[in-house]
Amino acid sequence: MCISVETDKVLYEGKSEFQEILVIQTKNQGKALVLDGIIQCTEHDEFSYQEMISFLPLCSHPNPKKVLIVGGGDGGVAREVSKHPLVESVDQVEIDGEVMEVCKKYLPGMAAGLSHPKVTVYVEDGFKFIREKKGIYDVIITDSSDPVGPAVPLFQEDYFKLLRQALKPGGIVCSQAGTFWSSRDFVTKTFKTVQNVFPAVAYAFTTVPTYPDGIIGFTLGSLNPETSFKEPTLKFNDEELNKLKMKYYTSEVHRAAFALPKFIGDTFR
Amino acid sequence: MCISVETDKVLYEGKSEFQEILVIQTKNQGKALVLDGIIQCTEHDEFSYQEMISFLPLCSHPNPKKVLIVGGGDGGVAREVSKHPLVESVDQVEIDGEVMEVCKKYLPGMAAGLSHPKVTVYVEDGFKFIREKKGIYDVIITDSSDPVGPAVPLFQEDYFKLLRQALKPGGIVCSQAGTFWSSRDFVTKTFKTVQNVFPAVAYAFTTVPTYPDGIIGFTLGSLNPETSFKEPTLKFNDEELNKLKMKYYTSEVHRAAFALPKFIGDTFR
Repeated sequence: MCISVETDKVLYEGKSEFQEILVIQTKNQGKALVLDGIIQCTEHDEFSYQEMISFLPLCSHPNPKKVLIVGGGDGGVAREVSKHPLVESVDQVEIDGEVMEVCKKYLPGMAAGLSHPKVTVYVEDGFKFIREKKGIYDVIITDSSDPVGPAVPLFQEDYFKLLRQALKPGGIVCSQAGTFWSSRDFVTKTFKTVQNVFPAVAYAFTTVPTYPDGIIGFTLGSLNPETSFKEPTLKFNDEELNKLKMKYYTSEVHRAAFALPKFIGDTFR
Repeated sequence: MCISVETDKVLYEGKSEFQEILVIQTKNQGKALVLDGIIQCTEHDEFSYQEMISFLPLCSHPNPKKVLIVGGGDGGVAREVSKHPLVESVDQVEIDGEVMEVCKKYLPGMAAGLSHPKVTVYVEDGFKFIREKKGIYDVIITDSSDPVGPAVPLFQEDYFKLLRQALKPGGIVCSQAGTFWSSRDFVTKTFKTVQNVFPAVAYAFTTVPTYPDGIIGFTLGSLNPETSFKEPTLKFNDEELNKLKMKYYTSEVHRAAFALPKFIGDTFR
């Protein structure tokens, strides 16, 4: 099964040291960033992914002051993380500087996050970057591409062990983790990998029509075995949500994201 | 944007009085029923749609003894509705007898519902059928194709007024109601139509990868203004869910189905 998006125009086509970078103008989904042939995000629906991969872990933590984003070259996650009222500073480490430059030019609505005053960007291999970090972050979000090419190591146990070291006590991690419909084995494997390293673990998902199966999941792990994940630590009322310019996330959507279809929930027991 | 499914083999191709009927063997989604060129269901993911369009209204009603299904020729909804322990009898009215015959032959896993002892099938125009029914049903489920061709009248206010008449006091209706991503206007319009006729109304959704955007919504209406929809009237524990052969629906999934992304929730206020 595959999803096709109608392309009106290719806006940018290039090859960085790490991957092929393509920005297209689609017919109905706005502009889209495509890496190595896989749609990363479209302007039409990116807010669902970016809000959820950011606010699910941030609102599972009681006080997420210092945050690290691994990957996330388009800037959308930095944009969302910076919004959270308790977040004071954000480090972002992206291996591919060219992706960020291309997004600044063609997808400024997302790339805006990269120049937010709370954010410091490092162009480095995320794996190497966190190797030297010990007990620094409250929340680490891995906003990688799919587990092919440069992102492969970001789904392995060694990586999650480094994340554990880089966290403060009670710290929380969140990684994109595929769709339970067509990538059930990958979803289950990533869940087990995080479970081997963290005392509390959960899987959540959101809808994104331009991703395979129209959904994408997240695996969350916490150093605090008491973390519930499901119940938000900070709830926003309608006025606050509007002020934060939320389009997808609400406290109710947060809770609902952890309610899994029986066939996939059963595999996590 | 469109979704493509790889076809291994055409199993049946025919034209009834009402529509083109096609059954295909897909590469990864099992067999699929296609009406007028639109995928109605695949064996791989049909349970999500069938369980949710059935159990969301049934478990919003305190005592759903007598149920009517309008449409639902493949039999999947009848299969699910019959499972509910409080349901005593099910009438099903399907306009196209040929769809049912084709499904009995090629999709017996769904069509099984049509021959359940609780179920009586009428091959008739649903619109005409309900015109004569007054105060009979606790729950009416409209399992129609999309609002093109024969299904057009099933999304109009006159139809919902007839449903209202056909219900007992406190009765509940549920209709398939499109995706909030690419059919937002249709979703909003159907919601408003049901709201004009019923004192309580709600929209819920589930994930179905072979439908546009990977989701499908449902509009529910109740004659009882106190109906909460979101809180299930009957909760099943794990053992009961297994006995009912549930693959998607749980009480938590029921609640989560009503948690709407902010951008669509806002349009319903």
